[in-house]
Amino acid sequence: MFISFDGIDGAGKSTQRDLLTQWLTEQGHEVVLCRDPGTTEAGERVRDLLLHRAELELHPRTEMLLYMAARAQLVDDVIRPAIAAGKTVLCDRYLLANIAYQGHASGLDLEDVRGVGKVAVDHVMPDLTILLDLPEDIAFPRLGKNLDRMEAKGVAFMHRVREGFLKEAETYPHVAVIDASQEIDAIQKAIREAVSQRLKDMP
Amino acid sequence: MFISFDGIDGAGKSTQRDLLTQWLTEQGHEVVLCRDPGTTEAGERVRDLLLHRAELELHPRTEMLLYMAARAQLVDDVIRPAIAAGKTVLCDRYLLANIAYQGHASGLDLEDVRGVGKVAVDHVMPDLTILLDLPEDIAFPRLGKNLDRMEAKGVAFMHRVREGFLKEAETYPHVAVIDASQEIDAIQKAIREAVSQRLKDMP
Repeated sequence: MFISFDGIDGAGKSTQRDLLTQWLTEQGHEVVLCRDPGTTEAGERVRDLLLHRAELELHPRTEMLLYMAARAQLVDDVIRPAIAAGKTVLCDRYLLANIAYQGHASGLDLEDVRGVGKVAVDHVMPDLTILLDLPEDIAFPRLGKNLDRMEAKGVAFMHRVREGFLKEAETYPHVAVIDASQEIDAIQKAIREAVSQRLKDMP
Repeated sequence: MFISFDGIDGAGKSTQRDLLTQWLTEQGHEVVLCRDPGTTEAGERVRDLLLHRAELELHPRTEMLLYMAARAQLVDDVIRPAIAAGKTVLCDRYLLANIAYQGHASGLDLEDVRGVGKVAVDHVMPDLTILLDLPEDIAFPRLGKNLDRMEAKGVAFMHRVREGFLKEAETYPHVAVIDASQEIDAIQKAIREAVSQRLKDMP
């Protein structure tokens, strides 16, 4: 099973992913954690350019294509082999993030992003995407002072990203929208229910 | 006018580009030189990953998408503004190189490369591509010992790249195939003729 976590920054992805990992491991799953962009050596180099080089000017198309490059490497090196070996992959972000950030929020044509995405993921798509949804005015203050490139785009940008995620979730049946304004335990409970449900539905 | 130079490494692109620059400048053109990947700061960082980090494993899809990212930045920052300002752009390589290298020679689906390319170049395509054609067994020994990632793929790979370029040239009317086994002056003469002809045909 391949599960991705997505949502605006500050929604609590890491905490919830760690709790889910613990639970899945207890259930006998062998869990592989990864982050997109990242995990592979090439992906981490690209991540560094994308998020931590504030001095580097990047247009939305450049951003989107860099994310896609990191993702292609992640798919081939980590996700596809893990799935083939019967493991459960939990990935921090995936293609949906580009559709929300560079598509809905930065104005790239959605079909362009989807088209490039199709090439980058090469048929490897999550069985389930956990979308942690939180109003940006709650999420943004959580981010602290050392903002990465995406976070530094500010709260109005985050609003458009959130709206984008929610719009996409309406279209895609495998995106579970989880209310991330609840207590940590209640969020985790909702995530486990979504995962259990999806596991039941899978062949 | 936007002219790209392409062909396998060792075919003499730099020499010919410099001679053409000189001639175009004498004719009153304001020439902007660029290289793809590269020229922009982001593009040069990506170029470094692509060509000079031999320790970094990159799959063909990752390579292709990294080239596209660098190209998107180059288009927006350099090529499109230069064309809009009435300048003449000479670019070392462009999209055709990905079609030959990652498509024909590395086995990526050609339509995938073209589809991603369409998004990356955002309608900015060369008015003329000068394809310097040379048998790989002449070009390869010229490369010396410090081979970059693409050059290090070897002579059989270069053969497939060359075949790919020639096949593409059959389809695209704006690719001028120049026999690069001639003397330098004869090659330059053929290039100038192709440029003059294309200038005449342009609106």
